[in-house]
Amino acid sequence: MLYRELSAQELSFIRDGKRAAYEEYKKRGCKLDISRGKPSADLLDLSEGLLSPIPRIEYCTPTGEDYRNYCEPDGIPEMRRLFSDIFEIPYNNVIVGGNSSLQLMYDCLCRALLFGFVDSKRPWVEEKNRKWLCITPGYDRHFAITEKLGFELVSVPMKADGPDMDIVEELVKDSAVKGIWCVPKYSNPTGNTYSDEVVRRLCRMKTAAPDFRIMWDNAYAVHDFDDDGDKLLNIVPEAIAAGHENRVFCFGSTSKITYPGGGIAMIAASEENLNYLRPLMHTQIICYDKLNQLRHVRYLKDKQNTVAHMRLLGGEIKKKFETAKSYLAPLKDLGILEYTDPKGGYFISVDLLPGCASRVYNLAKEAGVTLTKVGATFPYGKDPEDKNLRLAVTFTQGDELKTAMEILSCVICLVSAEHYLQQ
Amino acid sequence: MLYRELSAQELSFIRDGKRAAYEEYKKRGCKLDISRGKPSADLLDLSEGLLSPIPRIEYCTPTGEDYRNYCEPDGIPEMRRLFSDIFEIPYNNVIVGGNSSLQLMYDCLCRALLFGFVDSKRPWVEEKNRKWLCITPGYDRHFAITEKLGFELVSVPMKADGPDMDIVEELVKDSAVKGIWCVPKYSNPTGNTYSDEVVRRLCRMKTAAPDFRIMWDNAYAVHDFDDDGDKLLNIVPEAIAAGHENRVFCFGSTSKITYPGGGIAMIAASEENLNYLRPLMHTQIICYDKLNQLRHVRYLKDKQNTVAHMRLLGGEIKKKFETAKSYLAPLKDLGILEYTDPKGGYFISVDLLPGCASRVYNLAKEAGVTLTKVGATFPYGKDPEDKNLRLAVTFTQGDELKTAMEILSCVICLVSAEHYLQQ
Repeated sequence: MLYRELSAQELSFIRDGKRAAYEEYKKRGCKLDISRGKPSADLLDLSEGLLSPIPRIEYCTPTGEDYRNYCEPDGIPEMRRLFSDIFEIPYNNVIVGGNSSLQLMYDCLCRALLFGFVDSKRPWVEEKNRKWLCITPGYDRHFAITEKLGFELVSVPMKADGPDMDIVEELVKDSAVKGIWCVPKYSNPTGNTYSDEVVRRLCRMKTAAPDFRIMWDNAYAVHDFDDDGDKLLNIVPEAIAAGHENRVFCFGSTSKITYPGGGIAMIAASEENLNYLRPLMHTQIICYDKLNQLRHVRYLKDKQNTVAHMRLLGGEIKKKFETAKSYLAPLKDLGILEYTDPKGGYFISVDLLPGCASRVYNLAKEAGVTLTKVGATFPYGKDPEDKNLRLAVTFTQGDELKTAMEILSCVICLVSAEHYLQQ
Repeated sequence: MLYRELSAQELSFIRDGKRAAYEEYKKRGCKLDISRGKPSADLLDLSEGLLSPIPRIEYCTPTGEDYRNYCEPDGIPEMRRLFSDIFEIPYNNVIVGGNSSLQLMYDCLCRALLFGFVDSKRPWVEEKNRKWLCITPGYDRHFAITEKLGFELVSVPMKADGPDMDIVEELVKDSAVKGIWCVPKYSNPTGNTYSDEVVRRLCRMKTAAPDFRIMWDNAYAVHDFDDDGDKLLNIVPEAIAAGHENRVFCFGSTSKITYPGGGIAMIAASEENLNYLRPLMHTQIICYDKLNQLRHVRYLKDKQNTVAHMRLLGGEIKKKFETAKSYLAPLKDLGILEYTDPKGGYFISVDLLPGCASRVYNLAKEAGVTLTKVGATFPYGKDPEDKNLRLAVTFTQGDELKTAMEILSCVICLVSAEHYLQQ
């Protein structure tokens, strides 16, 4: 059965039934949140070892460095090593930051505005019509940074294997286009991973701006549900091979490995990039919190152990994804939505019938289910087709997700029936 | 006896004696550092309670907030309250940051450059000849921020009761002058505290720039050696009374209370300032590390307990100051230096005979004693009279300070004798 093939009478029947059910849901007074990419308390509990005390011998190191004191502006060697292993980036190219990779990205672009990058002709504030490529749907906080920093946001459609590179290659012929946001693995919110070919084309493409930058936010690098996860081509050697080593800034963090508010972030780039940025970074801050870096190394130990930890998390998240999909699959069979089926990460992206997303959002909200704001995954917060929903299922616990999906399914059916009735 | 009254023969005799002693010191191969405002390991040990584990009930709060997760962009209420009490600033005017107040200051000025402040006519990058007032001698990292951010640094002499306000009031008639750096209590490096009158004049003065800012870095607010510490007038009510509430940004941190690399920082300002800044701050970072905020509240508890903790630290630091002064006093009697005698803070400022600081620095370095770089306490790293030394005595342990001061005394006598011989 497909909604679009139903008669007006059949659609009215569905609509009325769903509306009645919806009114019942509303009376329940639920309070459910599937809006934000936050782990639930039981996922956080899996990192409890992080809170154990640090033995003195470890912060007062044998080399004489005292991690309680000012030192190590690039981060403590143990944490640089761990990030180097996890992200497969040479140790010397890694700088460890504070608790937020978003902060490192924002600060990085602020520096470009005020000082330019190593290959810039001038500070970017002096380039009046600067533009930035935003793959859509994408991550709202990325878009917000470049919007606030005065870039015109240019949408590029996401395809199954990453951004539409034909369009990207065309757009970067404009010297006003200074860079692109990428979440290359388990992209937020579509959950897909860039193909090798897309990674290579990003590295090789000719850009009119000599200081074009790829902001490579590898936020879900080790966030596979199981051993069958997506494989992302390492961009660093590709950029070197393409002769565009300075084009790439890599970011990562433990925000979705340990604690979102209390983790450790990383920026990695070519030595030339880092040598240029270090004095600027060092004017801003003497050093980041090394004790928390030490806590993370003590708990995560090495890449192998980190991956083992991520399998535990991934197993739990996979169950939540399965639950959500068990509600989405029947609706797909009705022809009223499409959804992504990622092998890792944090999000399921749902495309409803065009023009239905805002109404679904509003009705769900009235029934106590908070969804990610419609349009959040698009530049300027505007979904041109008003159809995309980002489901963030990880924050729910117990039966919350089932209830939320039950209500959401009802709302989607109701709004979809209305949609076809209005045509 | 005063060097300046000695004959050439007497001075030569001293010089030769000191040079022989100096050569002996050099042979010892010492490695001593009195260059940086870092606490010693035994001072850090006094905060060991900070590393104890956090009970679950405290991070999974009764209100439902989970401090391991994204939340509380203004900081956790407990830490806002503690900073509010310590700095005597209303709770709602306090935002808790990460581990670095310097970062908050830098970020604050970056925002002024890119967006302007709430009362700015335009972003500051568009004001080409912007200037910044630097009280000298002062804190090198402050000066470095405004230098890097493209301000012309304008020196204002430090007097016993704070900056020379006659000069400040004259300079701020220039609309290009956008602000002033202040370390109002136990100023770095002079160790003096602004008088009530200076605080009031800073608040009341008429500035040509409507968006003039006082960067009030109250880094040593509770850093008295004993109960007899300096009293600083609270600038917040004074600024309100003067009708210039938006003029003041207050900063503070626990860097010299607990751990310099692993503490908690604060920015405080008028509600109008904060409401303007919050969306900009929130574009940069979702929230700072709340677990470390919680650790600090658990350990420091309240203002009274924080002050008690600071007395323990202060007692230890005072002993180090006394040691340093026991070497400086005899040299003062010889008329070859002046030094400050603070009741708290981290530094002793020494004025040698003009033209002697660089040579003292170099000779001390050759004998294994590292001093703060000469000129560091002045804009652009240039001490116009080449006479100021900043002694940072807190990092030494055991007999290290005695040895360092012994060598330094010898070098100062040698260089001072040479100085008069050359005249």
